[in-house]
Formats: sequence, structure tokens, C-alpha cells
Amino acid sequence: MRKLRMGMVGGGQGAFIGAVHRIAAFIDNKIELVCGAFSSTAEKSIASGKELGIADERCYGTYEEMMEKEKALPEDQRMDFVAIVTPNHMHFPVAKAAMEAGFHVMSDKPATLNLQEAKDLEKIVNDTGMLYGLTHNYTGYPMVKEARDMVKTGKLGKVRKIVVEYPQGWLATAEQNKQAAWRTDPKLAGGSCCMGDIGTHAENLAEYITGLKITELCADFTTFVEGRPLEDDGNVLIRLEEGARGILYASQISVGEENGLRIRVYGTKGGIEWVQVEPNTLIAKWNDQPNQIIRTGGPDQSEAATYNTRTPAGHPEGFLEAFANLYRNFADTLLARIEGTDAHPLADDFPKISDAVRGMQFLETVIKSANSDDKWVKFVD
Amino acid sequence: MRKLRMGMVGGGQGAFIGAVHRIAAFIDNKIELVCGAFSSTAEKSIASGKELGIADERCYGTYEEMMEKEKALPEDQRMDFVAIVTPNHMHFPVAKAAMEAGFHVMSDKPATLNLQEAKDLEKIVNDTGMLYGLTHNYTGYPMVKEARDMVKTGKLGKVRKIVVEYPQGWLATAEQNKQAAWRTDPKLAGGSCCMGDIGTHAENLAEYITGLKITELCADFTTFVEGRPLEDDGNVLIRLEEGARGILYASQISVGEENGLRIRVYGTKGGIEWVQVEPNTLIAKWNDQPNQIIRTGGPDQSEAATYNTRTPAGHPEGFLEAFANLYRNFADTLLARIEGTDAHPLADDFPKISDAVRGMQFLETVIKSANSDDKWVKFVD
Amino acid sequence: MRKLRMGMVGGGQGAFIGAVHRIAAFIDNKIELVCGAFSSTAEKSIASGKELGIADERCYGTYEEMMEKEKALPEDQRMDFVAIVTPNHMHFPVAKAAMEAGFHVMSDKPATLNLQEAKDLEKIVNDTGMLYGLTHNYTGYPMVKEARDMVKTGKLGKVRKIVVEYPQGWLATAEQNKQAAWRTDPKLAGGSCCMGDIGTHAENLAEYITGLKITELCADFTTFVEGRPLEDDGNVLIRLEEGARGILYASQISVGEENGLRIRVYGTKGGIEWVQVEPNTLIAKWNDQPNQIIRTGGPDQSEAATYNTRTPAGHPEGFLEAFANLYRNFADTLLARIEGTDAHPLADDFPKISDAVRGMQFLETVIKSANSDDKWVKFVD
Amino acid sequence: MRKLRMGMVGGGQGAFIGAVHRIAAFIDNKIELVCGAFSSTAEKSIASGKELGIADERCYGTYEEMMEKEKALPEDQRMDFVAIVTPNHMHFPVAKAAMEAGFHVMSDKPATLNLQEAKDLEKIVNDTGMLYGLTHNYTGYPMVKEARDMVKTGKLGKVRKIVVEYPQGWLATAEQNKQAAWRTDPKLAGGSCCMGDIGTHAENLAEYITGLKITELCADFTTFVEGRPLEDDGNVLIRLEEGARGILYASQISVGEENGLRIRVYGTKGGIEWVQVEPNTLIAKWNDQPNQIIRTGGPDQSEAATYNTRTPAGHPEGFLEAFANLYRNFADTLLARIEGTDAHPLADDFPKISDAVRGMQFLETVIKSANSDDKWVKFVD
Repeated sequence: MRKLRMGMVGGGQGAFIGAVHRIAAFIDNKIELVCGAFSSTAEKSIASGKELGIADERCYGTYEEMMEKEKALPEDQRMDFVAIVTPNHMHFPVAKAAMEAGFHVMSDKPATLNLQEAKDLEKIVNDTGMLYGLTHNYTGYPMVKEARDMVKTGKLGKVRKIVVEYPQGWLATAEQNKQAAWRTDPKLAGGSCCMGDIGTHAENLAEYITGLKITELCADFTTFVEGRPLEDDGNVLIRLEEGARGILYASQISVGEENGLRIRVYGTKGGIEWVQVEPNTLIAKWNDQPNQIIRTGGPDQSEAATYNTRTPAGHPEGFLEAFANLYRNFADTLLARIEGTDAHPLADDFPKISDAVRGMQFLETVIKSANSDDKWVKFVD
Repeated sequence: MRKLRMGMVGGGQGAFIGAVHRIAAFIDNKIELVCGAFSSTAEKSIASGKELGIADERCYGTYEEMMEKEKALPEDQRMDFVAIVTPNHMHFPVAKAAMEAGFHVMSDKPATLNLQEAKDLEKIVNDTGMLYGLTHNYTGYPMVKEARDMVKTGKLGKVRKIVVEYPQGWLATAEQNKQAAWRTDPKLAGGSCCMGDIGTHAENLAEYITGLKITELCADFTTFVEGRPLEDDGNVLIRLEEGARGILYASQISVGEENGLRIRVYGTKGGIEWVQVEPNTLIAKWNDQPNQIIRTGGPDQSEAATYNTRTPAGHPEGFLEAFANLYRNFADTLLARIEGTDAHPLADDFPKISDAVRGMQFLETVIKSANSDDKWVKFVD
Repeated sequence: MRKLRMGMVGGGQGAFIGAVHRIAAFIDNKIELVCGAFSSTAEKSIASGKELGIADERCYGTYEEMMEKEKALPEDQRMDFVAIVTPNHMHFPVAKAAMEAGFHVMSDKPATLNLQEAKDLEKIVNDTGMLYGLTHNYTGYPMVKEARDMVKTGKLGKVRKIVVEYPQGWLATAEQNKQAAWRTDPKLAGGSCCMGDIGTHAENLAEYITGLKITELCADFTTFVEGRPLEDDGNVLIRLEEGARGILYASQISVGEENGLRIRVYGTKGGIEWVQVEPNTLIAKWNDQPNQIIRTGGPDQSEAATYNTRTPAGHPEGFLEAFANLYRNFADTLLARIEGTDAHPLADDFPKISDAVRGMQFLETVIKSANSDDKWVKFVD
Repeated sequence: MRKLRMGMVGGGQGAFIGAVHRIAAFIDNKIELVCGAFSSTAEKSIASGKELGIADERCYGTYEEMMEKEKALPEDQRMDFVAIVTPNHMHFPVAKAAMEAGFHVMSDKPATLNLQEAKDLEKIVNDTGMLYGLTHNYTGYPMVKEARDMVKTGKLGKVRKIVVEYPQGWLATAEQNKQAAWRTDPKLAGGSCCMGDIGTHAENLAEYITGLKITELCADFTTFVEGRPLEDDGNVLIRLEEGARGILYASQISVGEENGLRIRVYGTKGGIEWVQVEPNTLIAKWNDQPNQIIRTGGPDQSEAATYNTRTPAGHPEGFLEAFANLYRNFADTLLARIEGTDAHPLADDFPKISDAVRGMQFLETVIKSANSDDKWVKFVD
């Protein structure tokens, strides 16, 4: 099987998320990096490319140039897909340009800056028929797959309550680094800081695991750090399909928290709890037997979890492997399409344009609610 | 120092909470049980009293009889105070009768069935000058004292966010035991099941630790088990004094949870997390140094925590010791009053009539909000 | 049922362990303190007694006086049993005097200073027929009962391996308090510091849970703190009946450890792990299903655990309740004997003179091994 | 900077450890796989190579052929180093052949089957001047680096006690898979099963973190599963340089344990505890302040840990990243050597031939002790 050829937009020297995407792409040996528009100038792009082993002539100064020149290359040389790892406001234009030029796309999240763009992007995906993946990375963990499988197979009964939270502490003070700067700037980050950056991960995780959609919500946003233009903390009551209720919160001022994404789901028969900072453990909760410590690679793991696990039990897998699962599943799907074969039935499990649209709908809804005196705001279409 | 003489109303054979109050009273050897109206008939009351080593003539058939007969005894024999451990609806009438007869009161929570009664009770406390204690027991844990001390002494900086929750799983199904039956009956439990029974513990704990009062809130109540007349789950957004924000939730359908009371408080400088089921650990959270595992009896424990700790570090203290701290502090305060001495400055630290009123205000507010379309409901006076 | 009347030797003002015994005795309302030789002089004894509500005339200056005068009291007034809470070297003479005077005994551990005394004591117990209890308190925890029950009922299969450890940190430096002073003085503590004080707890716990006796062992003792006459750390390989093998260690120089008693037992089918500092959790380990979190009061708890649990799941029980279980079981056994009734079948479950002898045999064996060049030293008879 | 060219011996289809080495090599984009003798026949080797994107002509049937043919290639095409991922008994001959042919080596552990081979290999390394790396992978974790740094910089004071253990459960029964089969076969695994496979990891980790060497030890080996020719459990008392003492144990019959490698080190001032299955947490233990939860990427992390961390705090790193740290450090060292530059001062931190010799010395010593009646056996030279 041939390797997929990846081009990258963004991810120049010193960029954290670009390195994560590359590791995720390389870890399974199915993808090679062949070109990139790594930085805002050709010079910088070449400097970054050199470190990455990319020939100078395939280090481009702009993404437009990259699309054009790659398209002109012979089919067996040009890139297959573009990985987009720029700041948020560039995700949409690059994805659009790529797909319109006939390249598939793997985009960092959020897919776009707002809902309108997301819908436009959805149309482009549908019109061009390109494969589009979105790195809502937390759904890549084996124990998240296991939790989802437990809901799907009825082990928890009917889902009643969801508590999902994502506290961080790194924006608790005004002294900000560059990573912080663009996240709190409405022009670069969109209409929300905390909810857009991490609240959407909570929303995506909750809907992924339970298969239930949020139908209405009630949000309270706060900006705790003076002078910050966007919220750094948000608390939300949520109501979901089939009568489920819950709480979602995200916070960037919760001192001492890393990426404290945690989800608890309670059904009529059982519950689960998963915490991102110790991702290889899933607690199953029961009233009629002791709670259980389900572990990545452990006994009776579901096929869905196993398919996304690289090593036997006892070899802890981490953030990068979870991220890589998205790339691996995207790659297998794309390779199968290219080669006209059938991909593994579980390969289709990665976030898509529908997740992008859903995320933007959530964001618009939650911002609308935060600014409203109405108790409940219906989920925006 | 002489022992305090306790009478008990309720707590006959098989009653869980009566046994807890007795252990809490006996553990420090400062209180003896001298009489009781343990059950609804004199016969049953005598049967219960016999097991407890109480002379038949001091086992009463009604609380009214108990007040009358005890009052008639010589001062050095009659009870000093009444422990009230009946179902909720009797708390108020017994407390009223006791104080009006000149007896001090230690009451199980909730103090009354509604806010009006709580205010009436407050008036009685003020008018009679009797000592009134309320067993909001979770505030008795050493690590809760430590958390409160950390807020008070500014270690966390200005408090910004509070997340307090109390999930239980035992009412997840309709098959109910007797304990469950009265809690879900509006006549016996008041206008709320879950919030009245355990949500008030969350409210009390949050205000106790932070010293901040809730000013407005937004509640979503659900009854998940069909046919149940009152809510078995409630999610609440809260706003507190000084701009603090937070979340409070209580649930009785969270399968696999015991008494999962947990609180997290985040200030500008640091945070804390405490979980009732492992009560001897308090996690202190920081951005500029590693998080710390503070332990009951450990190094640098505050005076407030030490005063409420019976054993050195490494001897885990539990629910009963926390409960007993309320009794011990109540007893020391009362003995000092009786003997005309000064109690230890920390002895005054037990829940009082103000907590009772506050709890009922919370309950009325949260019920009002649950039934309202307004986003925010101001805390009821 | 009448209360048992307890006399106490030792436990005067400021003594930690005396207070623990009293709480353990009082918590279940089955025992009252009626007299004591609390201190080494009558004056101090009376001062301590006054605080405890004991009449002056029953506060004795010596234990000999106590035995004599109590014996002379009418049968319905005199003490039933003596609680011995003195420093170690007095345990034997007081126990001997008490039983020879016709009083039952509950003794703090170690029962004696050496094996010869333990055997002498065993003879006295047998000759007098008095009831003798020993507070090897860690076996009183519900989850220890549960672990033992799991072994007994075959849930773990045949036991293969035991790892039991008791690290503490409080003697890591030479600056010692009074508690430390006598433990490191051979005249007061016997021929071992660390093994005698806490290693015997490990031995007792391992044999209690598994029902297997150590048959031979290999010990390495170290004195890390200069100038200390006895060992403050000991590592031991152990071999047990039926081919089981294991490790036992105790340490007082393990900085940052509280009372870190921990046991792991592995059988052919399953394993368990229990840690004293979080005593309400027992981890059950399996190869063919996820590990389980068994909790005090939780679903399917064994009768043995339930019998030693005071509150439902979610009300953490601690060191004092575990200690009190020994007293409660001792008291129920003694009361049944006094009243000529049958005690509950599980009431007989408290450490006895056989545990005392066994503990001293272990201590002599482990000291012998530490001083020997032979690899294996057979368990001393 | 050019990529290193790796050849692989072993690691054909279905081999777990080969896949781990490849991921570790690819994750940082510094190494490419160019050839391999993946299996025992040319046909199988080509089949495996095809999956890995290797040209047929560089898929060899034997390692001898690989050495010969690669050597004959132009310098800018031929492999730079060989990754050895065969069963144990082939590690030595392949490494020997590779270095004698002028190729550097990264070998899976154990380096050889016995001490004599290890010394022979050491001579070859010295004579040829080739770079030799050994994947004692657990030392690659950031929190292991942190622990080592804490010892080195004196934060723990003088080291007194080490407890290191490696329990697994997967060999608790006789029904064995292929992985199990060769490990318990003396011809393929050497003179030990459990100690050779995982006990050496414990030894390596303890000496790596503390910088102290074991000087003598006392071992007890057991074969619990009937019919197994080698031990499946071993308990060892250890004595180290500078008066440190400790315990080392390894077990493959500890039901319910994954790769439960855990180490505790106690010094005069502080202690540490690290557990492989939750590798991003390091507990620091103190007597004079609360214990601390040090986390990968957290505040004040040492330079040594930071150098081996790919992502900021909150992105859990796992087994594969730890493994990859060995490859990355090996690669940086080798690339610097090839290019005549200076590598980062921390790049030299990977296991070398001295660790290989040390591991075999440990194994010979521990086997000798297990078969000896002497209490202490000096570390074999």
C-alpha cells in the first residue's frame, strides 16, 4: 500500500500544533510530508521545510501558491491532502482553496470562525466530494470509544444525565504568551475565547459518546481577567434529546488545572466517568455491583476501542496516539477510496464536516444564550 | 467538667440517623443520653430505651410529655438539650417545644419544612436565648476546615469560581425502601426531594468554605423516575457575592455514586478540591508550583483543622468523626455557658439557626427558579 | 442489656492511645469507664480521672491497688475488664495481675516484650479462663474483613503471593518526640523498634487475611538514623504455608509516608489490594474482567464486612471505627458470656492471645534472621 | 539535517515489538526505514517489507545478507544503523555482525543471553567504535528523568531506601500464547523468565534514578505455574552503594496487574513515587510539607524532563513517547557524530552497552542467589 502524501499549511518553526499533526501523521507510517506553506513568507517556509526534510521547491510562501503548483505536478507526485494548522481565521479559506483545487483536507479545529462559514464549507465538501477531517482530537482515545460503545450497546440503559467539563488554569492571569494572545482576540478567535477554544471539545465529546444532541441550553459567561475582550469562563445548563439533561462548563481561569476535560454519563442502568489527564482509565459505575476500572487494552475491550489501540494493556497511550487515531482513520479511508478498496468498517470513525457545523451551531447558541435574558435558548440551526 | 445530659426525640430501633447522632454524642465522652421519646408510642419508646440503657420512666411516648416531665425534674438531673432525629416534618415542632420549655436543641437537618418555619424558629431561638445547633455535618471534616482557612487567609486569592456537586445513585430506580419513601413524599419532605435532601448540603458547604453568599441562581429540575412526585435531579447555575460564579448540582439518579459530595473552589492564586468519599485528602491547586496533597493531621495544618482532628496523620477520620465535631463544638459551647467559663475560641464553629434560615431560603429560591422562565432568580429573603 | 464496666491502666492526660481506646469503647454505647490507674501517681491519676468523669475514689495510683480495691467492690459495681494502654513493658504485668484477680483484659499491642512473656501470658489466659483481647487494630476494618472473606470463599483461588508493607516517615530524623523516645529504647520497646512497633501489624494483617502462616523468613535490618540503638527499617522475604511466598517490610524512615500499611494478595484466580490510608476501598484484581473498586457498605459486601460497618455506603469509616470494632466484638462476646447467652457468630472475630504469641514468635524470628548469615530462618515456636 | 537510515532485523508481520520500534523511530521524523531482514525467509521478509513501503530488493532473507548487501551500497544510500527486534537469543549475533560490518546498533533488550556475551559485545563496541543503544525503555519517561534529577540535585538528600517492583499478571495460567512461549523457554530466553524479562527493567530503573549500584542481594525465585521450566516470580533484598537498602521484585503471576512497574525512593529529606501505568505523575514526598503531584510538563520541571517532553502539560504522554525518547536521543547523538557537530548535552541520555553488561551481571547474580543458601551474594563482575 502506498503512503499518502501530505502538504501542510502553517506549522512552521516553533508552532506547537503543527508538530502534533506531524507526529500524528507519521506515527503509523502511512503518511509522508511532501510539501508545505509553513509560514507567512517563502523564506521562513523554506527554513521550516529544511528542518522537516522538504525540498526547497516544495516549500511555498502562500497556500494559494501551494495549491496551484502542487496541482501542476504529476499525479503520482503531488500531495493527496492538506493538513491545516494555521491560526483559526485561516482554517476556512485554506480548506476552501484546497478542496476547490481537488485536495482532501484534514483541518485543525475550529473548522471556521462562525456558523455561516461552516455551512459554506459543508457545501464545498458536498460539491467537491473531497474527504474532510477535523481534529476534534479527544474523541480519538480508546477509552472514549469504549464509553461510546457502552452507550450504544445499551450497557448504561437510557442516558439520563451528562456532566462534561473542561477546566484549564493557564489564562488565570493577564500575563499572556502568544498562544494566549490570539485566543483572546475576537478577530482571530471568533466571538468566544473559552467556549470556542475548549467548550466545543466538551460539546463534541458529549454528543459523540452519548449519540444525543443538545436541543436547548442556558449559558452564563464571565470574563474574570480584567481587560480581556472575551469570556474566560462559561457555565451552561444543557438539555438533550430523549429527555437527557446535563451541565457543560469550560474555564481557563481554573488555577492548577491542565486540560481537565472530564465527562460523566449516567443512564438508567450504569454510568461512566473519563478524565483526559489519565486517559487510559474509564470508570464504569453500577448500583448493583462494584464500580469497575476499565483500562485501555484490558479484558473485554470493545472492538471500537481495540481498533484504536496500538499496544497491549499496560503500555499507556497518550494524547499523541489519540490524535494519531484521527489521522490513521482518515488515511485508511482515503487510501481505500484512492485504491478503490473497502476500508475497515471502523475506519470511518473520525470527525467530519458535520462535526464542524455542529460545533459552530453550539458556539452561536451558547453565545446567544450568554447574551440573553431568556432562560432557554434553542439550538441554532 | 460534668457531662451534658441529652434527651432524644426519634431515633428508635432501626433508625439510621438516630444511631449516628448517638455515636457523635458519645465519641468524646462529654455527653450522656438520659431520656428519649424514641418512637411514636410509649411502648416502642421503652423498648428502644432499654437497648440504650435508659430507665423506663425516662422513655416517653411523646415529645410533649418528655418536655413536661423533664422540666419537672431537679436541675441536676433533667436533660440539658434535645437531639432531634425525627423525619423532617417534626423538626420544627419539636425544636419549638423544646426551646420554649427551656431546653437547648441539636437538630438534624433540614431545620424546618419551609422558610416561614425557619424564620419562626429563628425568632424562637432569639427570644428564648437557647443554644441551637443544626447537623449540616459535612462542614465538620478537618479538610473542610482547612479549605475554609485557606480561603480566609487569602491563600487562594480572590474567589472566582465554585463547582459544588452532590451526586447519589440510590434513587435511580422506583423500587424504594422506607428511607426513600418519605424523602419523595411532599408532605414529609417539603417541596423538594433531591435539593432539599442533599442540594442544601452543597449550598451550605460552598458558602461555609468560601464565606460568599449566593445572590441569584438559575435551576433546572428533573424527575427521571416515573411516578415520583418530586425532582430527583437538579442542575443550578449560581452567582455569588463579589462576582464569583459557579455551578451547583445534586442528583439521586447518578448510578454508582455513593455520597459524592465534591467541591472545587478557584481563586486568583490557587484552588482546592475536596471529595467527601475520601475526606482526609484536600488537593491544593497552583499554577506556579505542583499541586499538593494536603492530608488530615499533616504538616502545617491550620489551627481550625487541628482543633477538629482527633488523631495524628495516618489515622483516617471519617463521617462519624466529622459529625461528632459538630456535637463536640456544640457541647463545649454549651458547657462553657452553663459553667460560666469561656469556651475555646474555635468551639463556636458549628451550624446554627442562621444556617437553617439560609438553607430554606436556598430551597425556596431554587424551587422558584425551577418553576420560572426567568433566567435569573434573586435569592429569596 | 447492661453496659460493660471498664477500668483503664495508663491513658492519663495527653496520652494518645488511651484516648483512642476510650473512643473505641464508647462509640457503641456498650461500655462505660468506671475506674482507672491512669498515671504513675495517685495525684495525677485523679487529675486525669476528673476529666473523664471518674469519681476520685476510683482513680488509683497503681494498677495493683486498682485490682485489689475493685475486687473488693460489690459484683454489680466493680469493673468487668481492664483496658491496658501503658507503654509496652507494662502490658504483661498488668494483664497478668488483672486476670489473676479475675478481670478480663483488652490490651494494647504488643501483648508482651518478648516471646517467653507471651507464652506465660497464654498460660494465664488458659488457667484463669478470662477473656483476653489484643488491639491489632488494622484487622478491624470492613474492607480487611472483605478481603479475608474473598480468600476464605475461594474467590482468589489458591493464594500464591503476598506483599505487605508498612512505611512511615516520622522517625526519619533524630529529633524525636516522647512517642519516638520509648519506641527506640530497647528497655521499653523490646529487641526491635520498627518491626516490633509496626512490622507486627503487617505480619498480623497478612496472616489474618490469607489464613496462611509464615513458615520461614529472611530479614535485613537497618538503622539509618545515627545513634539509634534499634533498627528503623526492615526488609523481609517470607515463605508461608501451602507454598505461598512474599515480601514484608516496615520502615520508619520513609519520608512523606503516614501509616502506609498496604497489602496485596494474589491467588490463582484473582488478587486484592488494600491501603490503610484510604481504608474504605478494596481493589479486586482479575485477568479476565476489569478490576473492581469494592467499597465499604457497597453492593454484595460480605456478611463479615457488613457486621463491622456502622453506616451505609458513602459514609466513610475510619481508624477509630475499625478500632471500635475490636472493642464491640470483645464486648459482645463478654456480655454474652456474662449473661449466659449466645453471641452473634461473628462477634468472636477479634485478636486474641494466640495473635499475641504469634506476634512475638514473628518478632523473635525476624530479629534472629536479621542477625544471622543463614538465608532462611524457620519460624520460632 | 538529513534523516537517519534505519535497517531492521526482526519485526515482521504481527510482531508487537517491531511495531513499537518503528513508531518510536518515526515519531520525530528523524529516521526513515530503508531496509530489513524482517523474517526468517526472504519471502516473508518481502511480504512484511511491502506493508512497510520498503523496496523488495532491500527486504533480505537473513541478517547476514543484509549486512553484506547494504555495505555494498553507496554511502549516501546504505543504512546508518540496525534496529534489532528479534527474539532474545538473536540479539547478540546480529549486533555483533552489524557492528563488525560498520553499522551502528539500536537493540531491544536484553542485549544478550548471558554475561559472557555481554562482555564480548562490550569489547566489540569498544573495538569498532560503533554507537550502541539498548531500549531499556522505561528510563525514557519524563517523570523518570525528573525523579533522577531530584536525586542528582540533592532534593531528596542522601538516598536510604529503594523499593522497586514490576508485577504482571499475564502468565498466571499455563495457557500461553506465543509471546509467553519463548519467554519461558530457557533456550530462547536465557536462564531466567521473570527476572530476565522484567526484573532487569526494575534493576535498570532503580540504578538509573538513584545513581547507586547494587552491591549484593538475596533472591527467592518461585515457579508457580506447574510445568514451567523457569521462575515466574522473584523476590529480592538488595543492598546498594553508600549504605542504601531496598527491595526489588518482579512477578508474572500477579493477577490483574498490567505492567505495574513502580519505584519508590526515600532519602534523608524527601522521597518519590512513580508508577508506570500512570506515567505522567510523580509524587514527591516530604515530612515538613504536603506531598506534591509533579506532572509531565508542569511548573518547575527540570531541564532533563523538559528535553524529553513533546507537549505542554495536560497532553498525557505515554509508553510510545518514552520509547521514542531513546530513539530521538540516539538519533541526535548519531547525527551529530555523522555531521561532526555537537549534539545537545542531554542527547547522550540513552541506555548503552554499560547498561547491557550491568543487566547481565544483575541477572547472573540474582540467579546465583536464588540457587544459593548464602544469605548475601555479591554482585557478579
